[in-house]
Amino acid sequence: MQTKLLDDVRNQNPIVFNISNFVTVQDVANGINAIGASPIMSEEIDEAEAMVQMSSAVALNLGAFTTGQIAQIKRVGELANQYHKPLIIDPVAVGAVQYRLDVANQLLSDFQVDVIRGNAGEIAALAGIDWQAKGIDAGEGNQDLDLIAQSCAQKQHCVVILSGPTDVISDGQRVVHVLNGTPLFQLHVGSGDMLSSIVGAFAAVTADYFEAAQTACAVFATAGQIVAEQLAEERPGTFAVQLMDELHLVTRAEIEQKLKVE
Amino acid sequence: MQTKLLDDVRNQNPIVFNISNFVTVQDVANGINAIGASPIMSEEIDEAEAMVQMSSAVALNLGAFTTGQIAQIKRVGELANQYHKPLIIDPVAVGAVQYRLDVANQLLSDFQVDVIRGNAGEIAALAGIDWQAKGIDAGEGNQDLDLIAQSCAQKQHCVVILSGPTDVISDGQRVVHVLNGTPLFQLHVGSGDMLSSIVGAFAAVTADYFEAAQTACAVFATAGQIVAEQLAEERPGTFAVQLMDELHLVTRAEIEQKLKVE
Amino acid sequence: MQTKLLDDVRNQNPIVFNISNFVTVQDVANGINAIGASPIMSEEIDEAEAMVQMSSAVALNLGAFTTGQIAQIKRVGELANQYHKPLIIDPVAVGAVQYRLDVANQLLSDFQVDVIRGNAGEIAALAGIDWQAKGIDAGEGNQDLDLIAQSCAQKQHCVVILSGPTDVISDGQRVVHVLNGTPLFQLHVGSGDMLSSIVGAFAAVTADYFEAAQTACAVFATAGQIVAEQLAEERPGTFAVQLMDELHLVTRAEIEQKLKVE
Repeated sequence: MQTKLLDDVRNQNPIVFNISNFVTVQDVANGINAIGASPIMSEEIDEAEAMVQMSSAVALNLGAFTTGQIAQIKRVGELANQYHKPLIIDPVAVGAVQYRLDVANQLLSDFQVDVIRGNAGEIAALAGIDWQAKGIDAGEGNQDLDLIAQSCAQKQHCVVILSGPTDVISDGQRVVHVLNGTPLFQLHVGSGDMLSSIVGAFAAVTADYFEAAQTACAVFATAGQIVAEQLAEERPGTFAVQLMDELHLVTRAEIEQKLKVE
Repeated sequence: MQTKLLDDVRNQNPIVFNISNFVTVQDVANGINAIGASPIMSEEIDEAEAMVQMSSAVALNLGAFTTGQIAQIKRVGELANQYHKPLIIDPVAVGAVQYRLDVANQLLSDFQVDVIRGNAGEIAALAGIDWQAKGIDAGEGNQDLDLIAQSCAQKQHCVVILSGPTDVISDGQRVVHVLNGTPLFQLHVGSGDMLSSIVGAFAAVTADYFEAAQTACAVFATAGQIVAEQLAEERPGTFAVQLMDELHLVTRAEIEQKLKVE
Repeated sequence: MQTKLLDDVRNQNPIVFNISNFVTVQDVANGINAIGASPIMSEEIDEAEAMVQMSSAVALNLGAFTTGQIAQIKRVGELANQYHKPLIIDPVAVGAVQYRLDVANQLLSDFQVDVIRGNAGEIAALAGIDWQAKGIDAGEGNQDLDLIAQSCAQKQHCVVILSGPTDVISDGQRVVHVLNGTPLFQLHVGSGDMLSSIVGAFAAVTADYFEAAQTACAVFATAGQIVAEQLAEERPGTFAVQLMDELHLVTRAEIEQKLKVE
């Protein structure tokens, strides 16, 4: 776990280009900003190349695209490969909606991603493993989460983050668990989308995406945990606001002190 | 008033599918989540059937559609009828913009809605009653609000919620007033949109949409009132955040204690 | 500096019609609401004329348009001219993306704007002055900021607000500096977009757009400064929430007491 990457993000302030879903886009932009990177968004294919060129990482959220936007997403993914920019995807609800899974699988054959971040239902779907997803939520299943993450990483030749109460990160061989966090993440709709784009910020400052993925999870989960520990009750609105504060305030030393990884 | 429905929402965690307007969509998603249901959004007609099938209620917000989206909204409404899913619409600004009224009236002839939630200007417009609406705000008029709600409900064969300082709920015959609330709702742009989708969460757990509408109004208004009573000043930003907290925290007992219905 | 305009906004509650970018639209709507005006948004060309007619000012944010939306933006700008409504534009990232600069320049030749609000990189690009912008951020350059603002105002025949640690406002001849503010504005993505639309609220209540621009900057910067002075740490999430509170609460007297203009 290279917590030093947090300082690198803050010092380098990398631009992260996001194809965001319209539900959580404001949170994602502010989350990237709070962690110390610089967000930019666009839905226009004519500026895709300029956006990718100026950026240090590209994050594609598949949470609410229309058929018309698929061409733009495809183009951005291909450009990220062409310009060797780290490429992260967040395959929202592919475990629950066949249409989304079909589009995601097609896109994953059009370009090579570096990191996939999803919940158990989403990662299982991309791994081709049986699982009962529920809408945007993870749902339930009997498979071992390590196996799902590992198997998805092998199939897609990339790093996989399977988010949940414990985050499981795998590069297909190795598996790391980040045990930090809080159930309050589940109560705020934008949490997963924010994490995916923050992974982009970390992937912008190192060529080791397995390290970038772990560190992003550790920082994000620990920041949330610090906020939750200070709340006397489950306050999802206040949590979301103070999470933004803590992403800006949290230090390497605090993360190292709280960190539970195995 | 069946406050028990709040527990049912939290126990059943129903999926509410929303066609949201892009201004307030994040608040709507978080509000549904906070009350105990599960939000999902989409703008893509190709996944409309999957979305409706997996959902327990459908909420259509007409706050910011383009001509291109009307086909999707029409399709989703028809699918909700076909799959017998409760259908809620929020006819934003139909009292102020003739184009929106024309589209809303056409849609209301394409499918049958179960609940309409709007302010006085919007409900008057759908009832064909003269009223001076102002942009997204209710505006002013001389008609009796009960009559407007009742008359709209009769014309559209559905339950109507006319929101305001007092919420007027009618099924065309009966009229119920929820007197709880706070002027702070007016100071937060997403309040009405959130309520409309939360009505969806309650309609998902009972076949009695008149009860669902009342209870949703009571819970939402009371949660807002509890927050406002704790604020020393009119703080619209803080109110919005703590409303999200309170939607998650508020209990049946608290609502029953505060409730003012007549 | 006519701080009286703040009371005029609150008394007249003017409708501000916004073409917003999808990233920050909710903040923009709530900011307009909090200052005492009434926001309305639309992406549909068929209701453009109704929207402009009912509004007292029009604010066009060029932060995230698609090629398909350019026709709508052009039409809204032309209608604002036709109906003599004050027209504000916010040329997001035109300093960093050539495509955006080309579109902005074309639009600025299609209609006449009254106020342009941007950061140093954006205003320099519209003035045709060399500058190193960085994504959505101002970036760096050696030119004198007064000269950039003045030169852009002369070229575009309008009032220019060059936002930054110091806001520079020019009508091409005169230059005014608002020294109030806080670095926390930089940490919240929607700050600039909110200011641009709030300028619209002030331009709605006076024909003197140079005064409107100054006063909007003074109110916005001072509100932010008041919030920042009460925070013990840099909390970007809390800042954004309390900024919304303060836009509603701040009085003329408080602004006049804090104001630093030269």
